[in-house]
Amino acid sequence: MKPILYVGNRNYSSWSLRPWLVLAWSGLDFETRTLPLGGAGYSHRQMPSVLAISPSGTVPALHIGDDVISDSLAISEWAAEQVPSLWPSAPIARAHARSAACEMHSGFVALRTHLTCNIRRRTAPRALNEEVARDVARIETLWNTLRRRYGAGGPFLFGATPTIADAFYTPVATRFRTYGVKLGEEAAQYSETLLTTPAFLEWEKEAIAESWTIPESDEK
Amino acid sequence: MKPILYVGNRNYSSWSLRPWLVLAWSGLDFETRTLPLGGAGYSHRQMPSVLAISPSGTVPALHIGDDVISDSLAISEWAAEQVPSLWPSAPIARAHARSAACEMHSGFVALRTHLTCNIRRRTAPRALNEEVARDVARIETLWNTLRRRYGAGGPFLFGATPTIADAFYTPVATRFRTYGVKLGEEAAQYSETLLTTPAFLEWEKEAIAESWTIPESDEK
Repeated sequence: MKPILYVGNRNYSSWSLRPWLVLAWSGLDFETRTLPLGGAGYSHRQMPSVLAISPSGTVPALHIGDDVISDSLAISEWAAEQVPSLWPSAPIARAHARSAACEMHSGFVALRTHLTCNIRRRTAPRALNEEVARDVARIETLWNTLRRRYGAGGPFLFGATPTIADAFYTPVATRFRTYGVKLGEEAAQYSETLLTTPAFLEWEKEAIAESWTIPESDEK
Repeated sequence: MKPILYVGNRNYSSWSLRPWLVLAWSGLDFETRTLPLGGAGYSHRQMPSVLAISPSGTVPALHIGDDVISDSLAISEWAAEQVPSLWPSAPIARAHARSAACEMHSGFVALRTHLTCNIRRRTAPRALNEEVARDVARIETLWNTLRRRYGAGGPFLFGATPTIADAFYTPVATRFRTYGVKLGEEAAQYSETLLTTPAFLEWEKEAIAESWTIPESDEK
């Protein structure tokens, strides 16, 4: 029986997109099932439909037979154990890739709060508050530093092949596009790379087709 | 030259404690250097002294020669590549251990906000708001589920040997003790295990000896 990845609404669930890209890039056989979430924020954590498939009350959740892995990075590491090229092969490069993915996994709270993931939306560029601007600057520095050191062989952070670090920053690229965030040339080019992988384009197509919407505001 | 782990104030920096425990348990040779942080919250992210050793503006940061790994989980994974027993050996157990560590790494925001890490402090038990109570209940369920499935051979989540998952929940055990959070018998026993490992006791001793303090309030 192939593993089943439960994901949230594709337009909004940045957490779901990350391991879905990793699994798509891995070439492992898996099935995707969508679990519509009930509202904005974390209210879905008490939804019986979510708790039934994920004991933490969160998606994504990967079902492997009777076992459930309910964290985006843990799912990605599970895939990388079978397809090691999902991380760079040199130990220090791999540590830097993990550090980049982890920084996204635990951080950038201001960016996540104020520039919420809404893949199909486009807004006029807006003023960023100080904390969001700091997150954007840090991400740009991180991308450029990794690209300059490791990315010479291709368009991704570590060269020719996408890694888990690229998957973790793909939702960020959609946020930059949605809210018209101005980037330097290097970062803009990398962001465009993330938004044009075949796997992301497949996800985006479904995000656009989804009928479920969260009301949009200028605040969020 | 041995790796150098830069940590924050030991009494407060829950993020620093986690990979320090992992490195202590690993048996790898490393040096610890303390970097006093300037205040509560995230204001240290702009401190020149922090930015000089960690490009993300956060501690912990591991220096390996000229390379810096600046995330607690990435540091832990680096150690586990050299000392594989830092994760359980069976693939599904390992995925569950990673999922548990990751859930702490990205989540439990209410718990982290309202029951801030203050290792040497003891308060009278206080009423927990709904979100904090939910985090506590989830942690207790997670601990008991892992202990019942994997922990028969010893006092840790995965049996006789501490893993990265145990390191990631040790700061939580200190919060439960600081704020007098009432736990069921199984969880209380596991929490006590975390608070009595020789490595934690060594860290705690230095936390108690530290002179630097953040003003305490009943709110936090």
